Amino acid sequence: MPPQPDLPDPAHHDVDSMLSRKFGREVANYFSGSPLNRVSFLRADHGFISKALVHPSTSFLLLNDLAPLAKDPTKLAYATHSEVKLLIGENPFEKTEEQMIKEYNSSVTLPLVLFLGLDERKKDGFEHGIYSGSPYFAVDVTPKGTLEKEAKGVIEAMKAKDLQFVEGRMHMTLNAPEAAIYAQARALIDWNARNPFCGGCGQPTLSVNAGTKRVCPPTDFASLPTAQGGATSVEAKPRERAACATRKGVSNLSFPRTDPTVIMAVVSHDSKRVLLGRQRRWPPHWYSTLAGFCEPAESVEEAVRREVWEESGVLLGRVVIHSTQPWPYPANLMIGAIGQALPDGEKIHLEHDPELEDAKWVEMDEIREALRVGTSGLGEGPGEGYKEGGLRLPPKTAIANQLLRAVTGGFLGEAPKI
Amino acid sequence: MPPQPDLPDPAHHDVDSMLSRKFGREVANYFSGSPLNRVSFLRADHGFISKALVHPSTSFLLLNDLAPLAKDPTKLAYATHSEVKLLIGENPFEKTEEQMIKEYNSSVTLPLVLFLGLDERKKDGFEHGIYSGSPYFAVDVTPKGTLEKEAKGVIEAMKAKDLQFVEGRMHMTLNAPEAAIYAQARALIDWNARNPFCGGCGQPTLSVNAGTKRVCPPTDFASLPTAQGGATSVEAKPRERAACATRKGVSNLSFPRTDPTVIMAVVSHDSKRVLLGRQRRWPPHWYSTLAGFCEPAESVEEAVRREVWEESGVLLGRVVIHSTQPWPYPANLMIGAIGQALPDGEKIHLEHDPELEDAKWVEMDEIREALRVGTSGLGEGPGEGYKEGGLRLPPKTAIANQLLRAVTGGFLGEAPKI
Repeated sequence: MPPQPDLPDPAHHDVDSMLSRKFGREVANYFSGSPLNRVSFLRADHGFISKALVHPSTSFLLLNDLAPLAKDPTKLAYATHSEVKLLIGENPFEKTEEQMIKEYNSSVTLPLVLFLGLDERKKDGFEHGIYSGSPYFAVDVTPKGTLEKEAKGVIEAMKAKDLQFVEGRMHMTLNAPEAAIYAQARALIDWNARNPFCGGCGQPTLSVNAGTKRVCPPTDFASLPTAQGGATSVEAKPRERAACATRKGVSNLSFPRTDPTVIMAVVSHDSKRVLLGRQRRWPPHWYSTLAGFCEPAESVEEAVRREVWEESGVLLGRVVIHSTQPWPYPANLMIGAIGQALPDGEKIHLEHDPELEDAKWVEMDEIREALRVGTSGLGEGPGEGYKEGGLRLPPKTAIANQLLRAVTGGFLGEAPKI
Repeated sequence: MPPQPDLPDPAHHDVDSMLSRKFGREVANYFSGSPLNRVSFLRADHGFISKALVHPSTSFLLLNDLAPLAKDPTKLAYATHSEVKLLIGENPFEKTEEQMIKEYNSSVTLPLVLFLGLDERKKDGFEHGIYSGSPYFAVDVTPKGTLEKEAKGVIEAMKAKDLQFVEGRMHMTLNAPEAAIYAQARALIDWNARNPFCGGCGQPTLSVNAGTKRVCPPTDFASLPTAQGGATSVEAKPRERAACATRKGVSNLSFPRTDPTVIMAVVSHDSKRVLLGRQRRWPPHWYSTLAGFCEPAESVEEAVRREVWEESGVLLGRVVIHSTQPWPYPANLMIGAIGQALPDGEKIHLEHDPELEDAKWVEMDEIREALRVGTSGLGEGPGEGYKEGGLRLPPKTAIANQLLRAVTGGFLGEAPKI
């Protein structure tokens, strides 16, 4: 069994301790703060990856249909190389990217194995030049294609060890450092699973660079006429595939997609009230900050103004960015901002883009009280001291909560940022 | 001829006037600051779009292979509905999205027409409920598919009017408000052109919602056996296409992609120097801030620390976000940050990810002088007063320049942000 990472505070939510420990006054949001160094420039070095794969200190995080293997909902579990070998083989990184493209055969399912990074706090013997630490990988064990039986075998072996794949849309119960490790694995496995074909030409693509790139090979060994006896001749030449624009130069289609979104605490022109909104499907009295997707060729500040006007009718003056949060459901980057309404732009109008059931201006003191007693996940009850009918807000793991803490705390007063 | 927008300061670069005019102390970067209200929620309303299309105040921006129609390199030119009718027909928005999907025929090229928004400063008669202003559209006039001849006809007609399609990789000579209009058109036309197929299933897709969404239709009228005489029977049923995951619920693959990138001014722990880097292909003495792509499940702050360490070896403490810039080459959102090095993390090491030819710490005064006399685009000469051998930096239209202005100006001192 591989050593478990030496994580600080494996308690329910340790966001506060994580951020004060590392970065002074910066707000580090849940799903950020990974303890791993991605050493992204080493992913294409198949010698390095091959060596990291089989080191005794290496940990493999397994995801089945995006559900992570865990000991319990707060703590991930990891497999060893020998436990995943049945599915991934001795070494899926034996070949260079160039060789893999040359030998591409679209009828063969290849295992999806991601290199996540090195935990440099653990010095247990793995070294590569000036880099050292315990390697972390993630493996997609979702049964599919020609590897269905092997994947099921790995899943059964893990279940026999009393480990479970934690289902559910969110995984906000994980301790913060492991939530960041899971977020990286989930985002990349999901991107690979959603994009088996090339958007540029419609042909199937191949995952390379330890799960962080998909290329559109120019040839394919699939469906070749076989020699008598059924085996494809070793000297067979692959079929040429149709031309594709992604093969010329560098194309963003080859790389993972991240969707920037904006989420904003809007304060009134006199800084005394905050704008909150709610969707119909939320529990009674539960409100949050407004949010939406950035559009093409729009700055974050413009996206904040547009979304606030479209959803609430409120007109903003200055906007400043507070902090950001990765949100791997499936691939969002939440950019948290604080905006201030124009004096004559505070009237609420919900009918431009009728996404919200309600929006309202709330006094700072009411928000402070709700942050104290009324926060919870959408599926949970409010905290101790909550009085029925009082305002409810998102939990500390949500950036909305951190933005509201900022505007009801020192953010507006401590410096003329707005 | 349609009325031209009443743009403030159509001079070379009017970034300063634009930002002071609208948002007080906020830094609005080039390519942001569009004068148009996107009224994004009206794009799916084909009645609204059809009406806006034919209004006498409506302007059509034409892009040929992404080059915009212009009077000169500083000012866009616009066509009228009657001038583009040959290519786009009377009304490409006649049908609802539902009808278009039902009648989908992958063998027919449809014109790509984007609705960009309303210029609400111009009140010349176009009204739709509570919304009013001059409508703006963009049309892709790149000759292709079954519309090649019609596109060439529109291009020739424009050239006959002494208008030109401005070639070149960048379009930083455009006046700032029109640069933002062009950026929106370019980003969306490029996204549609790069993604004719579905990444989920490999089948061709259909552009809907006035150019801001691509759907994967479940049926296709293409390649149906034709009745005698060559015409497809009116009662013919379309062919069923293969299943696709993007048809269940909402998929991000249906929406435009924007790639978040980080760009950062890094100051030394004592705030006296700034870290700059250069690529081999840049002119001599030309340096800029470091930059790179955000990775999946990484906060902006983490991406800044990772990129700075990978490219320069420098270790950062706190990171704050300054401002953002849309960068439509092809689809980046540049998130500008300011980071501070840790006292024991200032040693430069270029060999982790050898992207830079050089990186160095530069005194604040040297940067101030270069901002005064040494700024220019990559292909231009430096400003007046520049002495050979002196530091050269990016122009005011680049967010790198604005970040350097911030750290050599009041940003570090005015408040304890770092």
